[in-house]
Amino acid sequence: MRIGELSRRTGVPVPTIKYYVREGLLPAGQLTSPNQAAYGEAHERRLRLIRALLDVGGLKVAAIAEVLAAVDDPAKSIHKVLGVASDLLVPRYPAAEPDEALLAAREQVDELVTQRGWQDVHDCPAKESLAMALATLRRVGHEDFVQVLDVYAEAAEEVARADLEAVAARSARSALDGVVESVIVGTVVGEAMFSALRHLAHVDRSSRMYGEAASHGQAAAGGDGEITR
Amino acid sequence: MRIGELSRRTGVPVPTIKYYVREGLLPAGQLTSPNQAAYGEAHERRLRLIRALLDVGGLKVAAIAEVLAAVDDPAKSIHKVLGVASDLLVPRYPAAEPDEALLAAREQVDELVTQRGWQDVHDCPAKESLAMALATLRRVGHEDFVQVLDVYAEAAEEVARADLEAVAARSARSALDGVVESVIVGTVVGEAMFSALRHLAHVDRSSRMYGEAASHGQAAAGGDGEITR
Repeated sequence: MRIGELSRRTGVPVPTIKYYVREGLLPAGQLTSPNQAAYGEAHERRLRLIRALLDVGGLKVAAIAEVLAAVDDPAKSIHKVLGVASDLLVPRYPAAEPDEALLAAREQVDELVTQRGWQDVHDCPAKESLAMALATLRRVGHEDFVQVLDVYAEAAEEVARADLEAVAARSARSALDGVVESVIVGTVVGEAMFSALRHLAHVDRSSRMYGEAASHGQAAAGGDGEITR
Repeated sequence: MRIGELSRRTGVPVPTIKYYVREGLLPAGQLTSPNQAAYGEAHERRLRLIRALLDVGGLKVAAIAEVLAAVDDPAKSIHKVLGVASDLLVPRYPAAEPDEALLAAREQVDELVTQRGWQDVHDCPAKESLAMALATLRRVGHEDFVQVLDVYAEAAEEVARADLEAVAARSARSALDGVVESVIVGTVVGEAMFSALRHLAHVDRSSRMYGEAASHGQAAAGGDGEITR
């Protein structure tokens, strides 16, 4: 198909498609004449993936280029691509001189990793991200919130197990390319899904505990106007 | 204390403190002379909270101002503040003409909400965020990943229950201000915590299923160099 048709099918404007080609996110079409190129299914699929990472994952173009380079690496493995995709999603914090709170939090993270028997995570930037989050709780005087850590870790394991089972199910019937793509989609979109679900579950639970209906014995519907805005 | 001492204790530079006061994030100190103001414990505490929201939550100053306005609202309730804080964290997507994938995804979200019996969530922006994520899965041909939705919803409920129990424990021994603060800290820092934990659990599980050790029967330690970079 021509670039105009590719644009129509994916909703991505022609200049944007050309920009992705220049940035190496999308392979160039096959030249059919000096001024015309033909695009195929693979282009359409890649373009939809780029939009998913941009729109839902909130990734920047440079980060997407990094993820796609891992996908296109002939030596790729599922484990490796998952690592790259996950690393890009882990929140980074400005490096700071470690204070007492951070040193204590790092120990706490190491204990947790040992206790849960997590493998191969020694060099993960996520360990430092977790330590920074725990250190922040200490600094603001909310170290009691740490009591939820085990529940969080358990929930994270459940979610990761489901994610990887979905990947395994796909790898039973699809080429490696499709599997690698599902790892990326699952990592990025799964993050957005969980965030939205946690929010909904928070509202539900706080409505039951502290909402209008809970405090005044009204019907649940009566409290609707009060929430979140 | 003077502003220099407040800066030393919190690690926030004096000009930044003055900027927060100008933006209404931090109340002004009490004037002790025309050129000097005194700051107290409340300022120090508020400043640490602002830094937590900035550094760990990645919130912008304008969003923090919105959260703190909810905290300082005399008519605040835990349910309301949780809503405001959560709303600011839910990823927003550019509004688009709803296509077939989005319409189907919205129905799926409504079904999920009914099935789980979630209360008071009708107007939550998180519902649309979830629908956008599910629609993206359809658009990129990964609707099979939706099979994880129930596991995610269950995990989100567990996490929300633990979060709100931590809030309840605090409210049993603390003034409303402390409780409201813990809701915000828990919402924002909890998001970062879960993201890091999900990443670690992914690496662990994928190491077991697809890592060097799994594929070549090597000792787990032998595969370390291969992962994530």
